Amino acid sequence: MTDFDATRAAFDLPEGICYLDGNSLGPLPRAALGRVQGMMAGEWGRMLISGWTDAGWMEAPRRLGDRIGALIGAAPGSTVVGDTLSIRIYQALAAALALRPARRVILSDSGNFPSDLYMARGLAEALGQGHELRLVAPEAVEGALGPDVAVLMLTEVDYRTGRRHDMARLTAAAHAAGALTVWDLAHSAGATDVDLGAAGVDFAAGCSYKYLNGGPGAPAFVHVAPALQDAAWPALAGWLGHAEPFAFETDYRPGRGIERMRVGTPPVIQMAALDAALDVWEGVAMADLRAQSLALGDAFIAGVEGACPELSLATPRAHGARGSHVSFRHPEGFAIMRALVARGVVGDFRAPDILRFGITPLFIGAQDIARAVATIVEVMATRAWDRPEYRIRRAVT
Amino acid sequence: MTDFDATRAAFDLPEGICYLDGNSLGPLPRAALGRVQGMMAGEWGRMLISGWTDAGWMEAPRRLGDRIGALIGAAPGSTVVGDTLSIRIYQALAAALALRPARRVILSDSGNFPSDLYMARGLAEALGQGHELRLVAPEAVEGALGPDVAVLMLTEVDYRTGRRHDMARLTAAAHAAGALTVWDLAHSAGATDVDLGAAGVDFAAGCSYKYLNGGPGAPAFVHVAPALQDAAWPALAGWLGHAEPFAFETDYRPGRGIERMRVGTPPVIQMAALDAALDVWEGVAMADLRAQSLALGDAFIAGVEGACPELSLATPRAHGARGSHVSFRHPEGFAIMRALVARGVVGDFRAPDILRFGITPLFIGAQDIARAVATIVEVMATRAWDRPEYRIRRAVT
Repeated sequence: MTDFDATRAAFDLPEGICYLDGNSLGPLPRAALGRVQGMMAGEWGRMLISGWTDAGWMEAPRRLGDRIGALIGAAPGSTVVGDTLSIRIYQALAAALALRPARRVILSDSGNFPSDLYMARGLAEALGQGHELRLVAPEAVEGALGPDVAVLMLTEVDYRTGRRHDMARLTAAAHAAGALTVWDLAHSAGATDVDLGAAGVDFAAGCSYKYLNGGPGAPAFVHVAPALQDAAWPALAGWLGHAEPFAFETDYRPGRGIERMRVGTPPVIQMAALDAALDVWEGVAMADLRAQSLALGDAFIAGVEGACPELSLATPRAHGARGSHVSFRHPEGFAIMRALVARGVVGDFRAPDILRFGITPLFIGAQDIARAVATIVEVMATRAWDRPEYRIRRAVT
Repeated sequence: MTDFDATRAAFDLPEGICYLDGNSLGPLPRAALGRVQGMMAGEWGRMLISGWTDAGWMEAPRRLGDRIGALIGAAPGSTVVGDTLSIRIYQALAAALALRPARRVILSDSGNFPSDLYMARGLAEALGQGHELRLVAPEAVEGALGPDVAVLMLTEVDYRTGRRHDMARLTAAAHAAGALTVWDLAHSAGATDVDLGAAGVDFAAGCSYKYLNGGPGAPAFVHVAPALQDAAWPALAGWLGHAEPFAFETDYRPGRGIERMRVGTPPVIQMAALDAALDVWEGVAMADLRAQSLALGDAFIAGVEGACPELSLATPRAHGARGSHVSFRHPEGFAIMRALVARGVVGDFRAPDILRFGITPLFIGAQDIARAVATIVEVMATRAWDRPEYRIRRAVT
């Protein structure tokens, strides 16, 4: 049985804060400070350039990829870390499209994360071969699979509503229609019992700063199914994906397996923090995590719904149809979230009307959920959100 | 007058090492440890998600871009940090090609860094419009400019030989031929008195882990001339380059100015280290740095050439034609460099026969050069390199 008291103790959480935003940025793992300090002072400072070999920096993207792979059902050697999620989606989609040269449709759903859609449109325009990004409602995806679909590109868990696609069924349906799949795991890795191997997923990508707690700007990862690795031609072919990077050849030859998806120099300091964050997962059974996530989510939903009829649940109730965050809608969602944050209950707001609460069992327990519910009930009952200072929207950029 | 004793004191250099490889990976700035620790414990740990606004993480790519911009003659607001150099080259080249739609040639030189060439070929293939990457000898570049050239893509300082292109002259020649320019500043930023504004450069990109000392995997930067920013359509259009990232619109609208070149979530921990590294440049006059670099380089060349006729200088002798590293050729270069490293003189080897020595005045002075020369002379005179253990090439990846 997973010891969630132990995992919680592994994080440095601010006093008095109920942090339900680990689905946006995970908190600081206590060990990350020392790990990064050690990497900087002991490796960079002492080894200098030889750190690339002697401290294992060069292999770290694959080593960390395998550590993440173990949490998402990916075979060893099929996942590599680096770059951002947007770049990884682009790479995966480009490689998938090249494997279906006679087809012209990228099928996705209208709730997909915008950056994935931007990347897909940009790729389609660059290719100039008439590729179309076709968006349908999430529930209409399966019916929209047809002989023109080259790639089904979906985010498993909707960043706003928490609605979870049935990855295994949709992947099988895509394959039956002759299409390949690209899955975005931003809200899945470390959040759900995703199993890429069992689902037969072709390509996947995700980030490591949410449920994996790698820190702000932690690197992304990309997964390519072992059977496709040698056929997948890397878009954004960079020198570290070359078969022999240090031969400095003028022509590109892709590296073996997942190595070819590497592009440029990986972020070694960020990787040290991520490595420490992944240590917290040692001894965590994903089945336990998933059960705990659903139980806490159920309690949260019941508590809020029971006392706040004006908040309408945006997340599917069925366990199989939701990820690990719970969202409610309210026209004044922005002000309500400001009022909650002022009371130490930190979720976030997603336009136009979504209040989003991340359920992260590694460090959130039943007491936190009870406090969050009580605070939401108080804020709603007293209309504490109805103050001018909570309604002023600060520009984020 | 720049105080190079003070800049040297800003670095934590290992005892007994003469580090002539700052052109590959700069050493640890002493302040970086505390800065990163503070960012992790004080910002990530305490502010959590609100660090994006309250600690300025979201603006950091542009703020750091401007700090780097000040070292390369780039106007404020024309440089942004993030991603890797390979990705930035791809973005710059794609934007430049789109601005010259009637032309089909990317002109570069055969000594350009391989990853730039891989990225260019990959882009040309993706576009499928018959773009050609045309490589000529470095000295033949100007004569190869013609009406079919869309973009002149060059690395200012050759990573092997240290040969420096005349950026202002070649940029003017490219413009006269109707072409745009993309300059790779990997071995220029923090190394030479590069002045993008004076040269009228259109696009540039570079990395921050070499002469800028940002640490292993420190983020790259990209520069777009102010006059082109609103016309440059960003390839790899990611959400943080959107005009309103947090509006989460389905369609991409590019952000203002250089903001549109942003892609995904920037590496905040790496940026903290880079910020500390850039502090060392406060008070450094690039003219002083350049003069010091050339004086130290002259002394190094004279010392080695005077005693080691079997080492042939690969770097141009003329000041105007070289960057800030000095290279010699020898068929046994690999073993020779191993012997030097074993004696604490750290340069690096680049296949097939280049011994490369970085001259980095921030932390390398006349005494270091004298020691390096004496060690090279000893190793060559005694054939100390001629040992089996120095000839075994370890695989780096």
